[in-house]
Amino acid sequence: MKLASLKHGRDGKLVVVSDDLAWCADASHIAPTLQAALDDWERLEGDLRNLGTDLAHEAIPRERFHERMAAAPLPRAYQWADGSAYVNHVALVRQARGAEMPESFWHDPLMYQGGSDGFLGARDSIPLADEAWGCDLEAEVVVVTGDVAQGATRDEALAAVRLIGLTNDVSLRNLIPGELAKGFGFFQSKPASSFSPVFVTPDAVGERWKDGKLHGKLMVDLNGEPFGRAEAGEDMTFDFGTLIAHAAKTRRLGAGTIIGSGTVSNRDASGGPGKPIADGGVGYSCLAEVRTVETILRGKPETPFLKAGDTVRIWMEDERHHPIFGVIEQAVEAS
Amino acid sequence: MKLASLKHGRDGKLVVVSDDLAWCADASHIAPTLQAALDDWERLEGDLRNLGTDLAHEAIPRERFHERMAAAPLPRAYQWADGSAYVNHVALVRQARGAEMPESFWHDPLMYQGGSDGFLGARDSIPLADEAWGCDLEAEVVVVTGDVAQGATRDEALAAVRLIGLTNDVSLRNLIPGELAKGFGFFQSKPASSFSPVFVTPDAVGERWKDGKLHGKLMVDLNGEPFGRAEAGEDMTFDFGTLIAHAAKTRRLGAGTIIGSGTVSNRDASGGPGKPIADGGVGYSCLAEVRTVETILRGKPETPFLKAGDTVRIWMEDERHHPIFGVIEQAVEAS
Repeated sequence: MKLASLKHGRDGKLVVVSDDLAWCADASHIAPTLQAALDDWERLEGDLRNLGTDLAHEAIPRERFHERMAAAPLPRAYQWADGSAYVNHVALVRQARGAEMPESFWHDPLMYQGGSDGFLGARDSIPLADEAWGCDLEAEVVVVTGDVAQGATRDEALAAVRLIGLTNDVSLRNLIPGELAKGFGFFQSKPASSFSPVFVTPDAVGERWKDGKLHGKLMVDLNGEPFGRAEAGEDMTFDFGTLIAHAAKTRRLGAGTIIGSGTVSNRDASGGPGKPIADGGVGYSCLAEVRTVETILRGKPETPFLKAGDTVRIWMEDERHHPIFGVIEQAVEAS
Repeated sequence: MKLASLKHGRDGKLVVVSDDLAWCADASHIAPTLQAALDDWERLEGDLRNLGTDLAHEAIPRERFHERMAAAPLPRAYQWADGSAYVNHVALVRQARGAEMPESFWHDPLMYQGGSDGFLGARDSIPLADEAWGCDLEAEVVVVTGDVAQGATRDEALAAVRLIGLTNDVSLRNLIPGELAKGFGFFQSKPASSFSPVFVTPDAVGERWKDGKLHGKLMVDLNGEPFGRAEAGEDMTFDFGTLIAHAAKTRRLGAGTIIGSGTVSNRDASGGPGKPIADGGVGYSCLAEVRTVETILRGKPETPFLKAGDTVRIWMEDERHHPIFGVIEQAVEAS
């Protein structure tokens, strides 16, 4: 089942979307918003799935689904907690600045509490008030959970995964060193993230959802050129069950919690820093990583951060090369 | 005007509460929840105030207001961002562990993104799975904002303050050093916070709301003994306007954002570390601070962290010694 929120008020209007993303059916008689559906999932899931079946059979009124009409599936959420599960990415960033990465990073997940009071839709522009802030994209996989009990095990955590999607976790890189030095984590350096037009139940991605990871190439284009083609199922040190259990160690998680994978990143086959797509590599899921590789190889970063007018596309394709979650496609706009 | 949310479902049921906290009137015909009221404040505030006037005149059906029936005014929120505005507290903690505090801490607010997917009511017990985590209370002042534009000035930020209240920002002190060392801020070390039974509009606290600060003694009792009597309006280096503007520097804030002051802390008149109430001081608003003072004075902390059965009371009184926001009164419970 695929779900989306059409732009409408602060929380959108829930629709069920056809597998090919061409059609949708109003679900607001079942639950007005996706958050309302998640709040009462056990009772409402069957009705939503029946609506999806009726939509597939053209048995009910339907309308064209336009990705540009979609808000983030949760236009605002009660929790957005982003991990950093591709430890390769962290190790590279540390290497570039000559810092040792603690051995514990391979065993104990990094996770930060993100702002969740307002997200961008997949086609919304990225507002940027100051290019000196160093605006970056970060292509990631996310899951949305139901209620999770405090102290949940990995398996209990995995059983609470309701939906899967993609995010562009926009970051202001030049504000990060100052914030991390203060010790209180990210705040100003993390403006609103955007999310894929649809979120999808685990069964609907089939074999791609395995071992608590989403398997598939995370496609990232920058200004119309291929930039990243990393395999999301590879080099993910912590699966989503482990990330959710980490988040729930000392407190319960409310339904509608969004958990992020962190920037997807693959090791190069040679063991060295990853190569650009033009050089036969899988490329990158954020600018910081290519800048890091440039620093390691040639002493300084060469790829600039995002500026007004730059465009970013993020998606994942099924076997027939159709986007599973729709396409995040954003232009940076001076604000 | 005083507002509360009676326990009911995930978001409570909005009531207007009499100034003396004795009575309340159902406001759900105006807005079902406090979040709904904040989402549409410009349109609904007048109706809510009229209801409050009718309640004061006993012109409408009313029921007894019992603080134990109150959920957190926002039982879950889209944003909880906690500052650390009493820099004296930060300086003391640093001094105890022999660390220099950067000069910038006096000019650039510390703020972390807190979890907001589920808060405790004022009389809910504090669940604690492991006493070794070092459970602490933190008595703070909070404000709730309307929508705040990205880049808002301090004055614009102050104009967006809708409500004022108190919090017990529960912290797991022994998990903090490890999390801060990882650089991603607090996560497991910050379980659910609790909030005062009622939140109050700025006009209803009169002269106490001045210069973006709440003026008054923040009363904290621990196991029935006076523990803290700090003046919330004193030694607050950053007022709420400055804190909100800090949060809004790179992104807009959604209506219903809760901004915290950080642990209230006063300098001692002598300039040294603050004294316990029994020794003529104003005491402390968290255990970490008394433990810090003990470490500075006698080489090691003596006051233990919270354990099952311990009780915490937090409140602020008006001129007639009535609690303005009701009373946070919680027992720690093994979970």
